[in-house]
Amino acid sequence: MTETNSILIKDTTILSDSIIKGSVLVVDNKIEEISTNLVDKDADIVINGQNKITMPGLINTHSHVAMTLLRGVGDDQDLQTWLNEYIWPREAKLNEELVYAGSKLAMAEMIKTGTTMFNDMYFYMEETAKAVEESGMRALLGYGMIDLFDEEKRKSELNETKKFIDKCHNTADGRVQVAVAPHAPYTCSEEILKESKKLADTHNLKLHIHVSETKQEVTDLQKERNETPFEYLNNIGLLDENTIVAHGVWTTPEEMKILKEKDVSISHNPSSNMKLASGIAPVNDYIKNGINVGIGTDGVSSNNNLDMFSEMKLTALLQKVNTLDPKVLPAKETFDMATKNGAKALGVNSGEIKEGKLADIILVNTNVPHMTPVRNPLSNIIYSALGTDVDTVICDGKILMENKELKTINEKKVISDAINAAAEL
Amino acid sequence: MTETNSILIKDTTILSDSIIKGSVLVVDNKIEEISTNLVDKDADIVINGQNKITMPGLINTHSHVAMTLLRGVGDDQDLQTWLNEYIWPREAKLNEELVYAGSKLAMAEMIKTGTTMFNDMYFYMEETAKAVEESGMRALLGYGMIDLFDEEKRKSELNETKKFIDKCHNTADGRVQVAVAPHAPYTCSEEILKESKKLADTHNLKLHIHVSETKQEVTDLQKERNETPFEYLNNIGLLDENTIVAHGVWTTPEEMKILKEKDVSISHNPSSNMKLASGIAPVNDYIKNGINVGIGTDGVSSNNNLDMFSEMKLTALLQKVNTLDPKVLPAKETFDMATKNGAKALGVNSGEIKEGKLADIILVNTNVPHMTPVRNPLSNIIYSALGTDVDTVICDGKILMENKELKTINEKKVISDAINAAAEL
Repeated sequence: MTETNSILIKDTTILSDSIIKGSVLVVDNKIEEISTNLVDKDADIVINGQNKITMPGLINTHSHVAMTLLRGVGDDQDLQTWLNEYIWPREAKLNEELVYAGSKLAMAEMIKTGTTMFNDMYFYMEETAKAVEESGMRALLGYGMIDLFDEEKRKSELNETKKFIDKCHNTADGRVQVAVAPHAPYTCSEEILKESKKLADTHNLKLHIHVSETKQEVTDLQKERNETPFEYLNNIGLLDENTIVAHGVWTTPEEMKILKEKDVSISHNPSSNMKLASGIAPVNDYIKNGINVGIGTDGVSSNNNLDMFSEMKLTALLQKVNTLDPKVLPAKETFDMATKNGAKALGVNSGEIKEGKLADIILVNTNVPHMTPVRNPLSNIIYSALGTDVDTVICDGKILMENKELKTINEKKVISDAINAAAEL
Repeated sequence: MTETNSILIKDTTILSDSIIKGSVLVVDNKIEEISTNLVDKDADIVINGQNKITMPGLINTHSHVAMTLLRGVGDDQDLQTWLNEYIWPREAKLNEELVYAGSKLAMAEMIKTGTTMFNDMYFYMEETAKAVEESGMRALLGYGMIDLFDEEKRKSELNETKKFIDKCHNTADGRVQVAVAPHAPYTCSEEILKESKKLADTHNLKLHIHVSETKQEVTDLQKERNETPFEYLNNIGLLDENTIVAHGVWTTPEEMKILKEKDVSISHNPSSNMKLASGIAPVNDYIKNGINVGIGTDGVSSNNNLDMFSEMKLTALLQKVNTLDPKVLPAKETFDMATKNGAKALGVNSGEIKEGKLADIILVNTNVPHMTPVRNPLSNIIYSALGTDVDTVICDGKILMENKELKTINEKKVISDAINAAAEL
């Protein structure tokens, strides 16, 4: 997948910071030109963009993709019951083969619903990296470290991350980047958190961590340390522009100031926060305070799919009802969260249809009843579209799906392999 | 569409009160037999149900379907701005032809996403009735009466409803039923509400009304009458088992007792209540109090689609986060709301896959990445499915869609007619 190529998306509705009718020329892995006069340009591949909205590929800022194998496990349970009785016993049985099968299934699902990049934290991450390389997607991948305050475990977890950095960072033509990923303040010692940050700084990597997901974890930490989670993390030097925080549901106004000052990015995961009854994140406050927020799906068993279109709609709707103000989180702000804010969070030159950006592009079919009429393409994308309206997906200048047919993944085989793998858990 | 026929859905996963592997035999417009041994039965039409979940058609308990033409109008606005500046000026331009075009578009969308029956309140309802007759769907239709406390208007509105009852009630082989539909206590005088109830009782019809959607309307009514909305409606004799209330967002515990005692049904409309920032309805309390609750989409411009799968997921997720209890509104309760509770609300013998019930049945394809694996079909339907996973739709024993192809609607023409119609608004 390294040959030089060009793709012309002809006569389409381009939705990015503005909405224009025109064509997009991709050369190699970049957007070369956007114009209303590109129709006669030569290109190796020409895609008819009529009746389609051409927009940036969606960026899922928080996932555990191999958990697709656990779809439907432990619905409607308390978080602790869910973890102790349903999730952890099954995760204990994971191995390379199963994570590979679950990752491939996730990538089929993500591509089919318009996601071109995701930020993942899980186990056996070399397998997920292999699946990313094969699928043609882009990903930031971190091995989820949990030391449970044990020194031996701390060393082995850090070692696992170092091995993963050495083997996979900046591979697959740069499509795979590695992050350092300590799981959370309540599962990680202060020592491993500090070592994680050191490791991230040494290699100039992002750091991905769960913070302030549940009220309980915040209360526990405050009791123990007399600090709120973000105060604690700030005091040990963990927070800066390379930090990606999943959740941030119970953030206080004081913590908000820290996050802004340190330029931390947040991944908001509305389905997961609602399904596990974690709470409603103050997304509107984050945005008003100038804090960068992306959107994530979290793992499939707390969602139960990887459809970023559902998450976008949910993000907007949840903030409106939570503030009792229908004007908050308008369509454009929500769109930005799932595209360019995600790109900023993950440190990648994408998320916009703009000359010089990476060619991570999707085409969404509007020629269906639920997208008719198209008075405002942005409105239809945020409030009317379903993930399955995605017709064509381009990532890093390569076509991963065309006319709803996956080009880099054998869908039938991936589904059948995943069914077999899930049966082992 | 009145010829005798039989349909055998073979070797499928049947999801209703229980989950069984088997086959379903439909004769004429009823479910004749459900069994694990039906494979060799003769039938006019045989449908292969493998890799599909066979379940009751979804029932949308509150809609304004012709508003599909207003998709994307007035997003992210205050309710009053939305109504005054965006919706009402356009609705003033409506006519028979436009309502027919919008209704047909809505039916294409509803069938494609698995809805077999809907409860509608709008204008030019004879056009919607005609579209229902042609599409093969089932509907309860009411002309939305608004007298704005004016006596002349009251007479003409009631007259309109009487004409509609005479012309359309119990037509289309019984698939079209008429309801009396005074819009809301804040747009209707006490007189028209009382006359509405009398009219409904005389003809033994359902009564469909918006109540307690916004905090403002509740406060206003209390100021004016010193009664809460449901106290008021109960005191004027409006509430009984034939009442279908849309919204019920700000219901008090005292009102809850009235609703239970009078066996009123509620239509919960989560997307609309969230998008317009109306509030979060106490659905879990309704259910705990034994009050019947169905699920509706409301009109497209406060949603912006008619996908009942999204509404089901949203219903469950919203109650969980609102109560901070992940155990409330488990998948089965949510499923019941969109199927048999809806049937009870609308007074129709459907909503279950059970011998003797009306043959309103959908088949959902599970052979896609986001529905893999199928550990629990119920979980996949509520939390993982997208509306476009619906493969086949049967209503009143007739096939309306097979392998995603509409059988009673010319989709291309309906989309093109709707685009032209929308351009006039």
